[in-house]
Order: sequence, then C-alpha cells, then structure tokens
Amino acid sequence: MLRHRAVISHLRQACSFQSVPSRLCIRACSTNDSLQPQCPRLAFSGDNSSPRGWRVMGTLLGLGAVLAYHDHRCRAAEKSPHIYTREEVRSHSSPETRIWVTLGCEVFDVTEFVDLHPGGASKLMLAAGGPLEPFWALYAVHDQPHVREILAQYKVGELSPEDKAPSTLQTSDPYADDPIRHPALKVNSQRPFNAEPPPELLTENYITPNPIFFTRNHLPVPNLDPETYRLHVVGPPGCQSLFLSLDDLYQFPKHEITVTLQCAGNRRSEMTRFKEVKGLAWNTGAISTACWAGARLCDVLAKAGHQLCETEAHVCFEGLDSDPTGTAYGASIPLARAMDPEAEVLLAYEMNGQPLPRDHGFPVRVVVPGVVGARHVKWLGKVSVEPEESYSHWQRRDYKGFSPSVDWDTVDFDSAPSIQELPVQSAITEPKDGETVQSGEVTIKGYAWSGGGRAVVRVDVSLDGGLTWQVAELDGEEQRPQKAWAWRLWQLQAPVPAGKKELNIVCKAVDDSYNVQPDTVAPIWNLRGVLSNAWHRVHVRVTP
Amino acid sequence: MLRHRAVISHLRQACSFQSVPSRLCIRACSTNDSLQPQCPRLAFSGDNSSPRGWRVMGTLLGLGAVLAYHDHRCRAAEKSPHIYTREEVRSHSSPETRIWVTLGCEVFDVTEFVDLHPGGASKLMLAAGGPLEPFWALYAVHDQPHVREILAQYKVGELSPEDKAPSTLQTSDPYADDPIRHPALKVNSQRPFNAEPPPELLTENYITPNPIFFTRNHLPVPNLDPETYRLHVVGPPGCQSLFLSLDDLYQFPKHEITVTLQCAGNRRSEMTRFKEVKGLAWNTGAISTACWAGARLCDVLAKAGHQLCETEAHVCFEGLDSDPTGTAYGASIPLARAMDPEAEVLLAYEMNGQPLPRDHGFPVRVVVPGVVGARHVKWLGKVSVEPEESYSHWQRRDYKGFSPSVDWDTVDFDSAPSIQELPVQSAITEPKDGETVQSGEVTIKGYAWSGGGRAVVRVDVSLDGGLTWQVAELDGEEQRPQKAWAWRLWQLQAPVPAGKKELNIVCKAVDDSYNVQPDTVAPIWNLRGVLSNAWHRVHVRVTP
Repeated sequence: MLRHRAVISHLRQACSFQSVPSRLCIRACSTNDSLQPQCPRLAFSGDNSSPRGWRVMGTLLGLGAVLAYHDHRCRAAEKSPHIYTREEVRSHSSPETRIWVTLGCEVFDVTEFVDLHPGGASKLMLAAGGPLEPFWALYAVHDQPHVREILAQYKVGELSPEDKAPSTLQTSDPYADDPIRHPALKVNSQRPFNAEPPPELLTENYITPNPIFFTRNHLPVPNLDPETYRLHVVGPPGCQSLFLSLDDLYQFPKHEITVTLQCAGNRRSEMTRFKEVKGLAWNTGAISTACWAGARLCDVLAKAGHQLCETEAHVCFEGLDSDPTGTAYGASIPLARAMDPEAEVLLAYEMNGQPLPRDHGFPVRVVVPGVVGARHVKWLGKVSVEPEESYSHWQRRDYKGFSPSVDWDTVDFDSAPSIQELPVQSAITEPKDGETVQSGEVTIKGYAWSGGGRAVVRVDVSLDGGLTWQVAELDGEEQRPQKAWAWRLWQLQAPVPAGKKELNIVCKAVDDSYNVQPDTVAPIWNLRGVLSNAWHRVHVRVTP
Repeated sequence: MLRHRAVISHLRQACSFQSVPSRLCIRACSTNDSLQPQCPRLAFSGDNSSPRGWRVMGTLLGLGAVLAYHDHRCRAAEKSPHIYTREEVRSHSSPETRIWVTLGCEVFDVTEFVDLHPGGASKLMLAAGGPLEPFWALYAVHDQPHVREILAQYKVGELSPEDKAPSTLQTSDPYADDPIRHPALKVNSQRPFNAEPPPELLTENYITPNPIFFTRNHLPVPNLDPETYRLHVVGPPGCQSLFLSLDDLYQFPKHEITVTLQCAGNRRSEMTRFKEVKGLAWNTGAISTACWAGARLCDVLAKAGHQLCETEAHVCFEGLDSDPTGTAYGASIPLARAMDPEAEVLLAYEMNGQPLPRDHGFPVRVVVPGVVGARHVKWLGKVSVEPEESYSHWQRRDYKGFSPSVDWDTVDFDSAPSIQELPVQSAITEPKDGETVQSGEVTIKGYAWSGGGRAVVRVDVSLDGGLTWQVAELDGEEQRPQKAWAWRLWQLQAPVPAGKKELNIVCKAVDDSYNVQPDTVAPIWNLRGVLSNAWHRVHVRVTP
C-alpha cells in the first residue's frame, strides 16, 4: 500500500497538472511492466489531436486505479457473489454505508480505494452508489483489460436479473423520450431537464466534455430524423424560402470556433440566498465551453437573399421543441450581429468534433458567441428576418434584468432590453464552499469570462473577504481581440496566513473594457435572478 | 421685490426645465412690455437648429436677470463711481465680503441679487469676483441692451486704467502662449492645463458648451497656422505618404457624430480619499459631450492605401504638442477599430459647429467613439500603421489598470492592456456633496455613460446608501444599438423620507451588456487612480 502511495505521489509531482503537455505518454512513469497504456486518448472529444488546454487528470485517474487495484488482487477473489438490486447499491454511497459501484452487472465495494484515487476522492465519489460506465466514457483510459481484471478483485456480488435491463419508459410522459444523461450532472430540474456539472469537473478541462456540458432545456427534447430534417430559412420579400437539409448545410464553408455558453441564471442560487426569486437554483455550473462547427449564419442568410440594409431588424429563431399547445421555443438577435462575419454566429452541427448530442440541439443549433445562452436556439427549425424582436415569451417576458426595487406587481417587461451580451463573470471551483483545506498552501481554481468577445485580462483573488488581493495566473493563451468568445481558466497558489482557522476566499475578474464585477449580490438582485455576477465567495476551514 | 420673486417662481414652474421645448419663445411668460426677447439663441453651438436635449436654463437665467434688475434701476444711479483694481474685485466673492462682478471696465455689486437669480445662486456665484463676459458668452441672452441698462443700476465703480488691459505674457514660459480659459472651469493643473466644468454646469446641457468642455492637456498648447498645417499620413510599404492640408481633409465626406469623451482619471479624487495615487485630483467633471465633425479615419487610411489585412496592427497617432526634448504626445488604437466604418473614428476639425478650440486640438484631433480620452490625440501631426501599439509613454507606461495589490515597486506595465474602451460610469451632479436640501422632495440629477458604444439602459438611485433603490428617468432618446457614443443625462424626483435629517444618495448605472458599477472604491483602487467607476455617493443634510 505504501509503495502505491509513493508511486501515486510521484506521479502527482512529476505530472503536475498545469505543466504537462497534453500528449504526455505516461509510460515513462510506469513502474510495472504489465502496464503500458500509450498516449491514452480522452474519449469525449472525438478527435483530440490538438485539444487546447487539455488536462491529463483523466489519464492519471485511470493509471492510478490500475496501480492500486493491482495490489489488492488477492483480497476478494475467494468471496462468493451475492445478488443485489440497484436500490441496494444506491444505498452504499458514503464511507459510513461503504462505497459501492457497478460495472455491467457486477457490483464492487471500493471503500478502501477511495482515498487512494489519484484524481482525488471527490472524483470517485461522483460515481458512488451507481454505475462506473459514464465516468469511464469520460476518461477512457479506465476501459482496458488489466483495469477490469484488477477491479474484479473488489467484486462483492451481481445485480439482480430485473436490474440488468433498463427500466421501461412511461410513454404518456412528454419527457419519456428525453435522452439518458450523465450521472455526474447535478440536476436542477428533471422535466424539462436542467443540469450542471459539479465544480470539481467544470474546470478540469478547458473544453467541457459533451456529456457534462450544462443543459438548459425549456421543453421536452425532440427526437429528429437527420434524413428528413429541413431548416426553413425565410427569404426576403419576393424571394423564395430555403429548406436546407443537413447535406445542404454541409455545403457552406465549415466554420469552427471555441465558444463559452452561459445561462442568464448561472449562480442564481446566490441571489436566492439573499431574497427569493423565480427560477432554477443554478450553482456556478450553468456555463461550459465547447468547440462548435457549422455554417456561418451570415452565409446562410446571404444565400437566402438577405442583406444588411435594415439595421434595426432582428433575426428570429424557432426551435422544433414545443409545448403541448404547439408553441415552440424562440428567440432573436439583432440582424447587424447576424450579418457580421466577425461576430461568427453559427448554425452549428458539431460539438467537440461530434454530431450535436440530442440535449444540445441535434441536429442543428444556433451559436451566438458572446451572447447569453437563451439565444443559442437548439433543434433549430426556422430562421426569419423580422422588423422587431421575436415575440417569444423567452425574448420578451423573460431573460431581462431589472432594478432590485422591481417586484412581480410592478414589473414592466417592455421597460428593459432583452439580455444579449452578458457582463463579466468569474467563479471559484476549487476549493468548494464549506470544505476544509490544509494549512501551508492553498490552491484556488476557477473560471472567468465576459460577453461580447471581451477578453478577461485579470482575476483578483482575496483570502480575507476582499480586504487584500492577489493576482491569479490565467491559463492558456491570450485570446483574439474583440473575439474572446471562450472563458479563461485561472488558478492561484497562495500561502495560508499563519494561524488562520478559516478563509473567506473571493474572486473578481476584469475584462478588456475594464468592466469589473460588483462587490455584493443585493444591489443587483432581480426578480428573475438573472445576471448574478457579484464577487464569488467561498468559505473554508483550515486544518491546524 | 416680492413681485419679482412671484414672477420668477411662476417662470420656474411654467417652464419646467425638463419639459420645455428647446425653441421656447419666452415672450409668453413676459409681464413687461419692454421685454421682448424672441427665441434667444444659445451662443456656444454655432448653429443650434436641432440641438438634441438642449435646456433652456440659459434662457431663463437671462430673462430672470432682466426682470429682477428692472426693479432695482433707481437704487444705484446716484452713487458716484470709485476706481478699483482687479485684485480688489477678486476679494469680493462671498456674501460676507459682498459679491462683485465686472463687465467691461465697470464694477457691480450684485450681492442682493444673488438669491433672486432664476438659474440658482450657485450659477451666478461662479462669476463672483471676476468678469461676467465668459458667462454671457455661454448664455448669450444676457447680452442685450436692456440687460446692460438694468445692470448699470448695480454699478459701484470702475476698474483702474492698468487693469483694463490684459496682463503681459511671460514669453520664457512654454505655457505662455496657452489660450485664455473660461473662469468657470475648475483648474486641477495650470501647466499643463487640466480643468473640468463644475457639476452644476456639467449636466445643464446635453451638449457641453465648448468653453467649459473638460480640458486634459499633457504639454503646452501648440499654436498652429491652419494655412500651413499638414497632416502626415504614412502610406503602406511601397506607397507614398500623404501630407493633407485642411482643405484636403474637407474633401473627404464630412461625418458628424455626438460623442462623450472621458478621461481615464475622471473621479480620481474618490480613489485618493481611500489611498494616495499619482495623478490629478479630478472630480466628476473629466467628462463632456460634443458634436464632432470631420473626415472618417477609415476613409483617410484607405486613401493612403491601407487595408485591413493585418488584423493585429495598430494605428499610431502623434500630436504636434511636445516637451522641451521634442517628444510629442502619442497614442494608438487597433487597426481593426480604425478601419471599421461602423466604429466611426474621426479626424475631427469641428466641435459643436465651430473650428476646434485650441485647447481641444485645433486644427485637427482624433475622436475615437467609446474609447478613453487619452487616445483622442489633439493637434494631430502624424498617422501611421504599425505592427505594435504606440511606443509613447502614455500608451505603454500610463493609462493602464492594475490590481489594488500592485504598487510602484511591483508594477509591471507590460502586464496590463492599455485602456481602450471604458467601463460603465455614472455620477450625481445635483445636489452636491455636503449641500443642504429642502425636506419634502429632492431632485437628483446626473450623467451615465459606457464605453464601446454600449447604451445606458438604467440608472438606479438610492437615498439610503444603497439599501433601497429607485429607477431614475433617462433624458433624451434611446441611442443607436452598438453606437451609443454619448452619455444619457438622468434625473429622479423623490420624496424625502419623513424625519430624515440626512441622505446618503447613491447612483449606479447599467449598460446594455448589463455591466454594472462596483459598489466600493477600495477593491478597484489602482496606483494611477484610473477607472474610478464605483457607485457615486453624495451626502446631504435635510432642512427640518
């Protein structure tokens, strides 16, 4: 056991998560001839030939597991397997009840391994009480014969026959046909499905893996046939409409950009803590980053015969998701943005090198860089140019900001502009609020982003609630001026002031227009709980 | 006297400053047949045929003066004039010492009239101890025979012969040739000249009159001959330079836009109160708005042969102002902004319909809408396209923002981007800090603006230091999307909560990217005291 601790510790040091090149071949670190994983590929990108900001956490997580499992191979072999239900497995999800996981129809007790997990106990705990497959799909290095062989030593039984098959769908439920989701997602609402990745996974990779990209659905997920799918692009007066198949869209020049999407309600739970709002209680995870590819909207509009002559006009989008009355999701953006090639608005059909997942708009969604997620209409059915903004509820009666003085009796939705570009934002993803950190040195990590293509130029971090500040290190390269569509991840390693028993950690970002985040939540509170971008605060205890 | 109070009060009510059309003919309000000023013109615009947001304060100020002076005509006629020096006149500038002013070589004691002044005592007090001419030039309705006739009744003497001529210039002083400035300006530095209008004049007009437009000079003002002036526009490799005369510039399409300029140091004095900074102690007045006209920079660059092929390039500007070593003022902006017709960057030769005043760059200055004042290079001598930003001190070693933790020992100027677009800003101009207001109702006025063409969509005002908020009324029309280059003036009339002996008035603005101002100064403090845009706070007492 001690040898494995030493090896894992060595691995952690040698392969510092910040400095390791993304194509690191871990063979150099191996101490066991039977272990020869070579340049393992991360499963979620489809093609990771040049993944910017990639981390090797997944790789190490798999390797560490192999090393540790190996030593335990003789422990459980003689035990005779029992039969358990999924319900019983679910009840084993904490150290107190022991920690069980499943793989296929087999059940494993990994309680003793949790603290040895090179990726940290918290990562393994995400799977506690449930199946390993979704996590192995994210970090594919696990899925190798010798890992399975070693895991077998922890086997305590098998699933009961009726639990081996997926449960029957309730076909009368409009959400019955929604896709299966990744269990790591923290669900804020099942119907419609709204979920965010946990903070410890959110900033693990610069590019968010598709399965844990935050999902914000307003309606059931439509199940669309790519063969018969047609995008209706309404032409200008006197011109015919286009009805574009996927193949037609592929004929336009393929444009690829990395864009961060953020829900207007990200960090709403902090507003709720001050005073009740209407809306889902998003934590810090209603934000994610992907590499999107598709046709530029300006090219498609031009093909349909549109020009930028009416500068006050808007481009309206309609989704193919609809409520029982047949009302579809809809939104709009100004025509000026849609027609500007530099604004890079996409009709995207790929997400991180793969066809869009169903939850993210398969087969086609809009991507509007620098603009609130609500305008990135999914399952896109129709595009038209109109003299006014979309008359959709979500354009005119939602997704707007108001003064803290406005309540549901006094609100006048016409008095505020629809949210388009978002303000500067940042949050701490590590450590988590309420956690206990070691004295000596603390590592603080997080993300920062701003709307409208404004680059993040600085993140200030405070350990004393905002009295004094230190400048965090921004990861990755500087972004294109006016086109900083994606977030910057950041971190700060700072000494814990001697004698401190707790830390009030705060972060605030600055964008290249030198906009900053407001200090506190109350003065930006609004009845819908949107635009929650006050300093992010995390309170931790320090071990003596 | 009482009759005049009643008439003036009636005027104030009938001609509410907010609702009166700008071309109001004041004859309707006249009660005296001898008074027939018809549609008086404001002197500072050159042509005020369609002045957006114009106020009639100037008009009323003149009319009220006429009414009040008239009743006093018999009072001072019999007094025999004495001879006074300018020094003696200057010593009469408060109610305690009596309030004197001069017009031509005559001296007047207007002490008893101050409280009757329809524009408010504070406006007349701006001229106390000095000449009336600069104010009459701003509000031309004063300059009429019957006003002069009435003013004569207040005459107490004449200026001594040696004080009638302007004082001799010190020719060894590099600043000796600087222009004469308006006495209403609050001077932060004489050499180089840096001055701002007082708050009570700043938001009186949507367009700031040229004589009180804030002035931020870095060096002595050059005295340029418009006949021999040539603008050197360096061509791309292989192309000849252009040397454009003013007549050459007039040949380009004339482009006219209303733009607010703000110094990066506006409101620096609030930072200084928290902790010392290096820089001039600007109050809230290092911001002003003018209608600028000139050639578009993109047209001039295109004429010189430049294209937007090198997107990382910069356009460098050099002024014709220079220090004793010959170093000129310089700055740069990204080429992408310069070449974008929608960004409307101007080489301006007119300011509010007149040739640029010397203090504002005669004969040609750059105007970069939405961008910090420091890039609007005055007395423009040279324009060139370079692979990197200007190497000027003011581009690379000044006008940058840093964390509060950075001091002069640790600052690394290369680590921060030069300020270009500015963050959202607002300030209260009425009432003033320390003032006493009437119980009942309080009127609060101010300005709000944001950089990058982002429109101000809301101003929140608090009377209790930020605990509760009210939404202010924005004056004027909505601005063009993405091109809100100029400020919005705003006001709020609010009941003073019963029993309150003091008010902590606060304002904060929101722009159309929903960026907001930070709550407090300390967390945005920086060693140069730039970007001071925390909530603006004014403390007033309430009369019982």
